[in-house]
Amino acid sequence: MFEEKISQLSLSTPPSFIRAILKTTESKDVISFAGGLPNPISFPKEQLQESTNRIIENYGSKVFQYSQTAGLVELRKYIAERLQNTQGIQVTYDDIIITTGSQQALDLIGKVLIDPDDTIILEEPGYLGAIQAFSQYRPHMCAIRLEDDGMDMNELENKLKESNAKFIYTVPNFQNPSGLTYSPEKRKMLFSLARKYNCILVEDDPYGDLRFEGTPYGYISKADPSGSILLGTFSKTVTPGMRLGFMVIKDDTLRIRINTAKEAADLHSNIFSQYILWDYLTHNDLEQHITKIRALYQRQCSTMLSSMETYFPEEMKFTRPEGGMFIWATLPENMHAIELFEKAKEKNVVFVPGNPFYIDARNANTMRLNFTNSDDEIIVEGIKRLGELIK
Amino acid sequence: MFEEKISQLSLSTPPSFIRAILKTTESKDVISFAGGLPNPISFPKEQLQESTNRIIENYGSKVFQYSQTAGLVELRKYIAERLQNTQGIQVTYDDIIITTGSQQALDLIGKVLIDPDDTIILEEPGYLGAIQAFSQYRPHMCAIRLEDDGMDMNELENKLKESNAKFIYTVPNFQNPSGLTYSPEKRKMLFSLARKYNCILVEDDPYGDLRFEGTPYGYISKADPSGSILLGTFSKTVTPGMRLGFMVIKDDTLRIRINTAKEAADLHSNIFSQYILWDYLTHNDLEQHITKIRALYQRQCSTMLSSMETYFPEEMKFTRPEGGMFIWATLPENMHAIELFEKAKEKNVVFVPGNPFYIDARNANTMRLNFTNSDDEIIVEGIKRLGELIK
Repeated sequence: MFEEKISQLSLSTPPSFIRAILKTTESKDVISFAGGLPNPISFPKEQLQESTNRIIENYGSKVFQYSQTAGLVELRKYIAERLQNTQGIQVTYDDIIITTGSQQALDLIGKVLIDPDDTIILEEPGYLGAIQAFSQYRPHMCAIRLEDDGMDMNELENKLKESNAKFIYTVPNFQNPSGLTYSPEKRKMLFSLARKYNCILVEDDPYGDLRFEGTPYGYISKADPSGSILLGTFSKTVTPGMRLGFMVIKDDTLRIRINTAKEAADLHSNIFSQYILWDYLTHNDLEQHITKIRALYQRQCSTMLSSMETYFPEEMKFTRPEGGMFIWATLPENMHAIELFEKAKEKNVVFVPGNPFYIDARNANTMRLNFTNSDDEIIVEGIKRLGELIK
Repeated sequence: MFEEKISQLSLSTPPSFIRAILKTTESKDVISFAGGLPNPISFPKEQLQESTNRIIENYGSKVFQYSQTAGLVELRKYIAERLQNTQGIQVTYDDIIITTGSQQALDLIGKVLIDPDDTIILEEPGYLGAIQAFSQYRPHMCAIRLEDDGMDMNELENKLKESNAKFIYTVPNFQNPSGLTYSPEKRKMLFSLARKYNCILVEDDPYGDLRFEGTPYGYISKADPSGSILLGTFSKTVTPGMRLGFMVIKDDTLRIRINTAKEAADLHSNIFSQYILWDYLTHNDLEQHITKIRALYQRQCSTMLSSMETYFPEEMKFTRPEGGMFIWATLPENMHAIELFEKAKEKNVVFVPGNPFYIDARNANTMRLNFTNSDDEIIVEGIKRLGELIK
């Protein structure tokens, strides 16, 4: 009886390929390079437990009651100060909205900015969660090819000229799925082009803190975020389970619209967890904690890269990320990643074939490999098994 | 620069009148009958703290990691069993999706079922959070007058005949804002009419457990929920701050659609809090806890009713709820609730004027009074001040 009642919006929403994979591979025997999960040893368990006990004792019922839509003021102040101190971004807590993970921010952006057939610009390959969230609102999704140092800027300018695009969505640091980072030159160009064509720049930076080599760049719009939306999250540095991210929006009109959309979406994000996170951040040294995660991921990344050099055929290309969670590999031309995926599953190794990261389904010969959620031995063994299937 | 870019969806979303009121009345001196806040003394603080410590110790990193979209299996099993035991509803955990509060369920229903100009049927006066969530998707909202024992069934059948409505949204027990409950006769009629016209029945029951007089009815569709969507929440019985509600959907097509929409909305609800809630529910006697809340609210409701009898003019009408959180009062005909609201604010008493609960803005002479979030003395004082302004 329900089939005929489903909305266009729902019919336009692809189910997440990754979540489908994850569900079928929860068994302990499976080596998974598929998810984008932090290494659980990086969660500050004891400290979060201490914070929980402290906030219940210090704030009592307030941590269990309904709260403000924009989020805990103290947490927003902490975020504003950190952005100011680490990147020199001029923001106050008033510019910040706490979201139920970055995924909610993507959904809210789609809701508030996309009318059917509006053009939006994405990277190709691009972040799956963003493609899914935006798809719902039926935009014309325009994919700009990602080169080693960022989007192809000629292609981008051509699109901006002809399309009146609502926004450009980018993951400028250790992009998901490619692991690539925009160069300083392309950062400047992207910023100027967005401004020149009056196009909002949506910068999603979940991985920026996870740089284990080279100098951090921060947000592209850090010197002037007025025409941008900046997204951040604590999922990769503290805990993803609490689903806490944030948006920085300087423009009042847009921020009020997003706030109203959030009211309608979930009233406010879990306030109990907001208090815990805020207490954790003010009682611990976040930078020190992140330094440990960086060292861990650097080792895991390097293990994966050297295993790939050992076990993968020479003609295979792969990115060498300076941070983040993913390596992007390109199979020999005649191979389909989906076919490799099926064979690898039988050998109890999974990864994400490149297909869902392209807006138009295609027989991709690319694949995304996550290095953060497996120990070194497992990484070596998994890459070895994959290598045997690729030869 | 952003103004021109706002989507139709956002332009169709009214900001919440109540959230706006709450923000301006956070001062300690204000007597607030405006919110729908549980009494904070009802939160099982110590037990939730115990549960938090226990789940971190028992489950470690799992409670901090990414998780499944549909929610913690153990929590869903608990909910399924409770629905079976207390109401005889035939459900398994597979039929249940955990949501980020009931508000998210309303948003997901709007997303997955409403195309612009589709007819949906609501109660009038109706729940503001639902009006807001559904408005976004630009339906034709058809309001059916609420009588003392439920919707006007003739009006409902006429609308169903002429409209091919997608769904009927109802709060069958201690409705928000009216405090009214559907009679057994109207329950039967509503269920048959929904089925006869192939219309989905969306039953939102946040208050059903809070019955302090008479026999509980449960969900209207409890004997056969196959054509319905049932919503529930732990916000009124355990804690609203954790934003945990649930949906029961027997139909596979619809449940899969809702699940995909939830993936795109926030990946999954806070898993740390889902573990805490589940642990709390399995280590404590929920029914005993609810019994205490009922006794508390019964007293507060009765204090408010008797104060209204004492201080309000005789010609004023008001509902006498057998549970829930609200009393609905009707002012003398020539008075506007908005004007009373402005005057009362000066005397540091706030309530919600009836206007936003009607789909068409109007000069309502009705008002919603919350009795759960004020102590007895405060209730008496607040009603006394209001009474002085009404005379």
